[in-house]
This record gives sequence, structure tokens and C-alpha cells, in this order.
Amino acid sequence: MVQEVHWAVQAIGMLAGTCTTVAFLPQVIKTWRTRSTRDISLGMFLVLTTGIVLWLTYGLMIGDLPLVAANAVTFLLAGAILYFKLRHG
Amino acid sequence: MVQEVHWAVQAIGMLAGTCTTVAFLPQVIKTWRTRSTRDISLGMFLVLTTGIVLWLTYGLMIGDLPLVAANAVTFLLAGAILYFKLRHG
Repeated sequence: MVQEVHWAVQAIGMLAGTCTTVAFLPQVIKTWRTRSTRDISLGMFLVLTTGIVLWLTYGLMIGDLPLVAANAVTFLLAGAILYFKLRHG
Repeated sequence: MVQEVHWAVQAIGMLAGTCTTVAFLPQVIKTWRTRSTRDISLGMFLVLTTGIVLWLTYGLMIGDLPLVAANAVTFLLAGAILYFKLRHG
């Protein structure tokens, strides 16, 4: 099931997803380079990653392409930070 | 225009929005208390706040309650941080 929405409306959704994903990148790059996660809150990233998985689930259920695309990418990014946090502390 | 979605699906969306909003709160509380934003990236918060406004716009256009509710709240939170960053530097 994919919603029938005007291409311009979908473009706004994709742009929204691009912005919120891009805003996340500096932290991912920093963590990837340094492997240091001492100052990162585990609780915050557990709640955030859970939220992203739920948005992805919700997007799949209502068949919303921007929600699915954006949250699939941010899940990989937030998941990578969470992985480093759990592994390196 | 509001989408007709099953209440359980909408509940997943609201839970998703609650998680991603709650994950944001520690930063807001810290910034509110300290009024210090030296270590916060202006570029990141400009892109993030733009993304949140676009998600809100997209949510209104497709009539999606969880998207509108979550992004209206996170806009206020991210906007408050952006305000302190622009005012106190």
C-alpha cells in the first residue's frame, strides 16, 4: 500500500527527511572517526533509536515513502552510534 | 483532510513521535538551564529546524496527526535551542 500523494507534496516530505538526516551526519562522522562515545547519552540514543524504528514501522503501515526512506537511513546512522556506544562505552 | 487510519497504527505513530521528542529533551533542559550554546553547531540546528518545519508542513498536507503533533512539539524545542544559540552565541 502506497499513498497517492501529489509529487510536490512528496517532494516536501523527501526534503524534510533529507534535512533531518543530514543534521545527524556530523555526530555520526565524529563517532566513526574517534570511536569515542563517552559524552554520548546511552538512554537518549536508546529512546531515539526506538523512536526511529517506530517511525519506520508507522511509515510502512501507512505506506508513506518519505517516512520510510528517511527513517531507514537515520536508523542506520543512529544504530551505528548506538553500536559504538555499546561496544566502546 | 485527515487520513483514516486504524487506531493501533496511529498509536504506533504517536509513540514514535513521543520517543523522538523525549530524546530531544535533555539537550533542551541543559540549554535552558545554562543558557550556554558554545558547543552547539549552528549549521546543524538550522538544518534540523528547517527539516522539522518541513515535516510539519508535510504532515499538515497529508493530514497525518502523529507527524503534525510530534513535529509541532519538536519545533518548539529545537526553536528554543536555536533562539538561545542566536542570542547567546
